[in-house]
Amino acid sequence: MSAEALFPRLDPEAFRSQAHQLADWMADYLRDLGHYRVQPTVTPGEIRGRIPPGPPEQGEAFERIMEDFERIIVPGLTHWGHPGFFGYFPANTSPASILAEMLTAALGAQCMSWNTSPAATELEQAMMEWLRRMLGLPEGFTGVIQDTASTATLVALITARDQAVRRSSGRAVDALTVYTSEEANSSVPKGARLAGIRPDHIRLIPTDAAAAMSVPALEAAIAADRVAGLVPCGVVSTVGTTGSTAIDPVRAIAEVCRREDLWLHVDAAFAGSAAILPEMRWILDGAEHADSLVFNPHKWLLVNFDCSAYFVRDPAALLRSFSASAEILKAAYDDAAVNFRDWGIQLGRRFRALKLWFVIRTYGVEGLRAMLREHIRLGKLFADWVDGEPGFERIGAAPLATVCFRLVPAGESELAGDLDRLNRDLLERLNATGKIFLTGTRLKGRYVLRLALGHLTTTEAHVREAWDLIRREASEL
Amino acid sequence: MSAEALFPRLDPEAFRSQAHQLADWMADYLRDLGHYRVQPTVTPGEIRGRIPPGPPEQGEAFERIMEDFERIIVPGLTHWGHPGFFGYFPANTSPASILAEMLTAALGAQCMSWNTSPAATELEQAMMEWLRRMLGLPEGFTGVIQDTASTATLVALITARDQAVRRSSGRAVDALTVYTSEEANSSVPKGARLAGIRPDHIRLIPTDAAAAMSVPALEAAIAADRVAGLVPCGVVSTVGTTGSTAIDPVRAIAEVCRREDLWLHVDAAFAGSAAILPEMRWILDGAEHADSLVFNPHKWLLVNFDCSAYFVRDPAALLRSFSASAEILKAAYDDAAVNFRDWGIQLGRRFRALKLWFVIRTYGVEGLRAMLREHIRLGKLFADWVDGEPGFERIGAAPLATVCFRLVPAGESELAGDLDRLNRDLLERLNATGKIFLTGTRLKGRYVLRLALGHLTTTEAHVREAWDLIRREASEL
Repeated sequence: MSAEALFPRLDPEAFRSQAHQLADWMADYLRDLGHYRVQPTVTPGEIRGRIPPGPPEQGEAFERIMEDFERIIVPGLTHWGHPGFFGYFPANTSPASILAEMLTAALGAQCMSWNTSPAATELEQAMMEWLRRMLGLPEGFTGVIQDTASTATLVALITARDQAVRRSSGRAVDALTVYTSEEANSSVPKGARLAGIRPDHIRLIPTDAAAAMSVPALEAAIAADRVAGLVPCGVVSTVGTTGSTAIDPVRAIAEVCRREDLWLHVDAAFAGSAAILPEMRWILDGAEHADSLVFNPHKWLLVNFDCSAYFVRDPAALLRSFSASAEILKAAYDDAAVNFRDWGIQLGRRFRALKLWFVIRTYGVEGLRAMLREHIRLGKLFADWVDGEPGFERIGAAPLATVCFRLVPAGESELAGDLDRLNRDLLERLNATGKIFLTGTRLKGRYVLRLALGHLTTTEAHVREAWDLIRREASEL
Repeated sequence: MSAEALFPRLDPEAFRSQAHQLADWMADYLRDLGHYRVQPTVTPGEIRGRIPPGPPEQGEAFERIMEDFERIIVPGLTHWGHPGFFGYFPANTSPASILAEMLTAALGAQCMSWNTSPAATELEQAMMEWLRRMLGLPEGFTGVIQDTASTATLVALITARDQAVRRSSGRAVDALTVYTSEEANSSVPKGARLAGIRPDHIRLIPTDAAAAMSVPALEAAIAADRVAGLVPCGVVSTVGTTGSTAIDPVRAIAEVCRREDLWLHVDAAFAGSAAILPEMRWILDGAEHADSLVFNPHKWLLVNFDCSAYFVRDPAALLRSFSASAEILKAAYDDAAVNFRDWGIQLGRRFRALKLWFVIRTYGVEGLRAMLREHIRLGKLFADWVDGEPGFERIGAAPLATVCFRLVPAGESELAGDLDRLNRDLLERLNATGKIFLTGTRLKGRYVLRLALGHLTTTEAHVREAWDLIRREASEL
């Protein structure tokens, strides 16, 4: 066959027909989500065993690929949009966001620079401003969309590191120390390591009874490091820890940072969205003094993963660390325009602002607030049920819509190890039903189950069913 | 209004109707791509001025949002899929890839861990194995999908840094040096800085006449650093530089790295795809001795941005730097399964393997090879036209489908600055037509225009029209 015959020319009409087929597949999937098992029953290697070891030489028909997609892939997925998904954090696809992702994929806009897609850059600026207003951050805070909070926190720590190196003449990376709490997300100590901070210079500050960072312990750790001749460089405080959505006291931490001249990064990845509620705005109290802040609209604001909103109080330090001005990137408008390639790690960037625009406009700030309030109401309801049930106890506070609890049957061994094992067994039984999915974690030394609310599809009926199932499975242990 | 009334419940049938509308919009867009201006005529701030400064309180209708999308956003975009787009690198959306992105968006699968989407992890393993075979890398090379080559190169440099720190007892980050060529992508020296390498410890090695790294110069730089008491840590060699797709001599560089015990990372971001052609496999000669390698299927292999294939010869070093095992992430199958969160910076990960699967199966390896061969043929054709045209000269080699050239009118001033200005003017005039888009860069001290082929939509007729336009605009200067 000639090269010309093999060359995959673009056929818009074939695409049109296939895209219509997928529109129906997607709508059916959203409609039927609740009928899937949340987690599949596959074991490692099972899916891979159904995929040929090498690529096909010849092209295959769309119908055949879709058949395999439905036969091999779909039954092996964890369905993050399922109304019974209470694990990790809410994934939050929403129709408006999926529609925007369709357009994003077709446009293929590349958002390295203003020049490489002017409307994409300016929509990103506008959406970061909308989000700034929604969160009630002061004017002057400005931002960029990063892929994940892991990346945003690494960006913050690199900026903090470089600022500290510039300021401490002669001293360098090897002397720097970083502070976060023992309840911080794993991406925070990992980010510090990746930024080149020595692992033995990363301080995991103890937390109080509510799992929030202890400010006296933070102050003591900084003082001890200064005495030891080290160079404290930055603090990462968490608004909504991964384990139990505990809220670090940002204002008090910010005062320490100002006094000690340290970079303050606020990781509000999951909980930050709740700050668009006037009655919950207190969770960001003091954040106006932070140097940087991240929250993930892809967690609790109905925007498809990935979409992390990263704010800085002053972009100058960020740009000093991250700008990259190769000749090929220079453009006539560089002085007048923002080039977001200079605001993060990646040179190439997706057009992520479009889904924010679609989501915020489709639901309105009122709609998003109504959703957050409903999730918080359901969380309180669930917490009340646990509190009222003999043989269960709640661990930690539940300031938002994530509730940590465990089974403590009367008369059972009080040995911590036994209780941990019992609760691991309960979690395994619950997830094996395929009807709901929860994650477990360790909180204040105890293994706990964790119910995280925040899905578009989850109603009170689903939460009630989950609670009934939890009690039933617990009674059979 | 009650919270319940405002709450944006999922309506699959409304979504179905909207997704069908977008299927038509997308097909129309792909069909009409060639009729858009490649680059818009907007100036900085113009688009933003059409977007309200704050978010709407109430939700808005889909029709209104789509109207604004067509009225405000689309006319402000640079159309990367346009057949006259010859800038930077090919963006390469393709129908198969767009279809897969639609499903990805609807599924919202989260690929942190095997447990969080088993089929997504295993498809990613399988696709990296398909790509390994397509590139002819040795068995044992294994990989992960990163978002961009910038990220992959940073990951490689962090791994190299940590390995060097472990080996050099007592010496640490501040003593490390990194080597790449003066033609490396801006993300390479930037990545080294982000990894904490001192800016004055990053060596940009001179290149030979073909713009490839000079191996004697590399050896001399390493030797000088050792004499100065510094600790050489890694080399980044480029297969297909951004400027002119120059090919560093990987085998010779790998020998230096082996002798000097340095990490070797190969950045084949753009050109790597060409190695699936038997007649072009030489560009990766010696890569079997590299420690890591990245190439971007999102550049020249019809896969939507973002999708970077990152290979390592031995994942142990990678995992030592990047693993993050928080309690909440632990799962029963951890020993038997791969958790890709431990293979890179981000904890959260998109399901990117699906579009690779759709693209490779739809076009087949033969179809992808036919496309690459056609682009290389068109590149040679264009280079021949330039070579045969008085008043133009080609700069550098054009081993693939990117051709660098400039206007050097007979009798014009030979002053470099004047010629640079003339060619900048030519570039500006060409891009202002809206019919084609090229980028300029600096190569061997001269400002050059750069025609990069690689789009699904570009035919010989489009290249011919571009050349006619270039000559016409040049004649009017």
